[in-house]
Amino acid sequence: MVYVSRKEHFNAAHKLTNPAWSREKNLEIFGPCANENWHGHNYDLIVTVKGDPDPETGFVIDLKKLSTLIRTSVIDQVDHKNLNLDVPFMQGKMASTENLAMEIWKILAPGIAKLSSRSTLHSIRLFETPRNYVEYFGE
Amino acid sequence: MVYVSRKEHFNAAHKLTNPAWSREKNLEIFGPCANENWHGHNYDLIVTVKGDPDPETGFVIDLKKLSTLIRTSVIDQVDHKNLNLDVPFMQGKMASTENLAMEIWKILAPGIAKLSSRSTLHSIRLFETPRNYVEYFGE
Amino acid sequence: MVYVSRKEHFNAAHKLTNPAWSREKNLEIFGPCANENWHGHNYDLIVTVKGDPDPETGFVIDLKKLSTLIRTSVIDQVDHKNLNLDVPFMQGKMASTENLAMEIWKILAPGIAKLSSRSTLHSIRLFETPRNYVEYFGE
Amino acid sequence: MVYVSRKEHFNAAHKLTNPAWSREKNLEIFGPCANENWHGHNYDLIVTVKGDPDPETGFVIDLKKLSTLIRTSVIDQVDHKNLNLDVPFMQGKMASTENLAMEIWKILAPGIAKLSSRSTLHSIRLFETPRNYVEYFGE
Amino acid sequence: MVYVSRKEHFNAAHKLTNPAWSREKNLEIFGPCANENWHGHNYDLIVTVKGDPDPETGFVIDLKKLSTLIRTSVIDQVDHKNLNLDVPFMQGKMASTENLAMEIWKILAPGIAKLSSRSTLHSIRLFETPRNYVEYFGE
Amino acid sequence: MVYVSRKEHFNAAHKLTNPAWSREKNLEIFGPCANENWHGHNYDLIVTVKGDPDPETGFVIDLKKLSTLIRTSVIDQVDHKNLNLDVPFMQGKMASTENLAMEIWKILAPGIAKLSSRSTLHSIRLFETPRNYVEYFGE
Repeated sequence: MVYVSRKEHFNAAHKLTNPAWSREKNLEIFGPCANENWHGHNYDLIVTVKGDPDPETGFVIDLKKLSTLIRTSVIDQVDHKNLNLDVPFMQGKMASTENLAMEIWKILAPGIAKLSSRSTLHSIRLFETPRNYVEYFGE
Repeated sequence: MVYVSRKEHFNAAHKLTNPAWSREKNLEIFGPCANENWHGHNYDLIVTVKGDPDPETGFVIDLKKLSTLIRTSVIDQVDHKNLNLDVPFMQGKMASTENLAMEIWKILAPGIAKLSSRSTLHSIRLFETPRNYVEYFGE
Repeated sequence: MVYVSRKEHFNAAHKLTNPAWSREKNLEIFGPCANENWHGHNYDLIVTVKGDPDPETGFVIDLKKLSTLIRTSVIDQVDHKNLNLDVPFMQGKMASTENLAMEIWKILAPGIAKLSSRSTLHSIRLFETPRNYVEYFGE
Repeated sequence: MVYVSRKEHFNAAHKLTNPAWSREKNLEIFGPCANENWHGHNYDLIVTVKGDPDPETGFVIDLKKLSTLIRTSVIDQVDHKNLNLDVPFMQGKMASTENLAMEIWKILAPGIAKLSSRSTLHSIRLFETPRNYVEYFGE
Repeated sequence: MVYVSRKEHFNAAHKLTNPAWSREKNLEIFGPCANENWHGHNYDLIVTVKGDPDPETGFVIDLKKLSTLIRTSVIDQVDHKNLNLDVPFMQGKMASTENLAMEIWKILAPGIAKLSSRSTLHSIRLFETPRNYVEYFGE
Repeated sequence: MVYVSRKEHFNAAHKLTNPAWSREKNLEIFGPCANENWHGHNYDLIVTVKGDPDPETGFVIDLKKLSTLIRTSVIDQVDHKNLNLDVPFMQGKMASTENLAMEIWKILAPGIAKLSSRSTLHSIRLFETPRNYVEYFGE
């Protein structure tokens, strides 16, 4: 079993506000992350896949195909977008890095299974900034 | 003459749209950077000051004071903000990295002169992403 | 279960010497790390917390509160300090990165439990240099 | 149990071609990685060892000795070399990052056991580029 | 005048050998860089353009167009290639980072002039490794 | 004229105190940098040399020889040392990054001239932390 990782990135706007709360409570809980007119980040996304290398290629998974899958199924939906307003799979959810990582897992897990029978998604690591990041293992 | 640099960072939303142009022309020229609902970045700002070190301190400028100046006069105005809507000094200007760097120069140059008689602002380097950045030397 | 990480940093001096050994043996075992007059590092500290995101905030833990906890309970005790002479929790211990990481775990684990009932400390990752680092999971 | 990591690097040329396949099939599967005249990378290698710190030194393992072991048993065999032509332990294998990481494990595991009775090899992390890397845990 | 930079990267194989010299002299002068079967690098290329921002766009140069120009005129010729054997503009030259940077200047300077009448090429910065790099300003 | 740079690093302890001042004044001016028992840093040193590439080698300067010169004449004097107590060329000077960079210039400029008649020292860039650095051009 070898773990293979690919890093991609995207830029997006978001804000953190719970619509069930007053403006005051949102500012109290989320501070400047609740600023009404949005802010944004350069997100780094690391997708890790695990499996047994194919003896014919030496690959667990073809990283060019994995990169294409991440770009077409995730990056194209979030890059240069507003996570709260423009991204269907984030509707009705807080636009936190935690929730974003869990939704990206749901999108990529079946795509990776289809891409290669010998590999499965292991983790989603998502950096909101170089100092804040989350990791999700699917459970 | 020694050049001393300090790196700070901020997160902000923006979009690139020229209000004199049609929606179509804005999308043609700016591509996804013109997306109506904004996107954003983790900006890195490097401020370089030049001068002759003070023999009593060994410093061209006290970097803690320089950091405080950058934070109070620049970062507090842009961090977790929308560069187009929330930032007074960007009103009426395209929210490009070039324009942002030139405006930051205008703010910091007099503040640095006041902070230390032996140093002057040399350059503003501003990273929009790790792969795109601008530098401005005041002229 | 999502894993959330926050990176902080501090600068400190230290040396590696076992007081039970002769000067010669210390230099033989620790080499230049035993130099009598100290040396130092820019340490990077990554604290990882795990838990289930709160549906009301989307957060496993509020990263601003986690950052404040790390700064007040750890960074303030070690930053711009001498790990051998100035840091109470390192008294009587070798000032190795391994021991420092284990002591930081002991300080942070109860604080994080108090900060949020839905999260627990998962790991302490401590970089002494960009090429040397340790990780501790509490057992 | 503490996990201690050391990063080393090397530069090498390689190509990906399966000798059982036609030139066309190799180009179809491996794309530019199959270019006949080779290409190359700056590889980063992170070796992680786990164990219980020695109370006399505070170390799981002496990182200078670990660095020397990695250099003499791995780096000297691959640095400024052609992975397909010059490296005995890669003969008859696809020169993929996956296979390279697994072979490095086989070389280092017994050497680390000899170096220190209190530590064992935990993982080999190998970056082919800053965006593509693999990790192997020995099984 | 604002300076705008774009970073791209490519992977290539090369070796350093002067065909006028004996094998022994090549090894004496170039050491392992002269290894017969090549080695390689992940090169980082930073292209800096200077000019006056266009008031209608806020741009010195459209960075997407600059990126496309760099990729089509430089990266496509060197990426996953052998600098000594496969790259027409390096024929008859030592494959040093210095020479490569000067040749890239010759290719990009006229292309950038064509791309935008308000900007000119300022510098080529080329990293062979994170620790070795060159910069060329066209004269 | 091509500019060639080499990055090296060292770890050292220091403190900032002016012996002509009271303890109170030192703490007021230097803050925690004046802590009596020292603190320390991982310094990154970038040495830039300029010249015309030698047509026989393609080199402005042999980077292995430059690296050896930096190590033997600078790094060996400061690595794992106390800049205030152990380093002859810093005696009687404030141990600021500015002063350290200027002293390193004085050591390296003649050594580089001796190493290669076609190159001269252009600049010393010295990072005290990833966010604070100085640059010196010899005048």
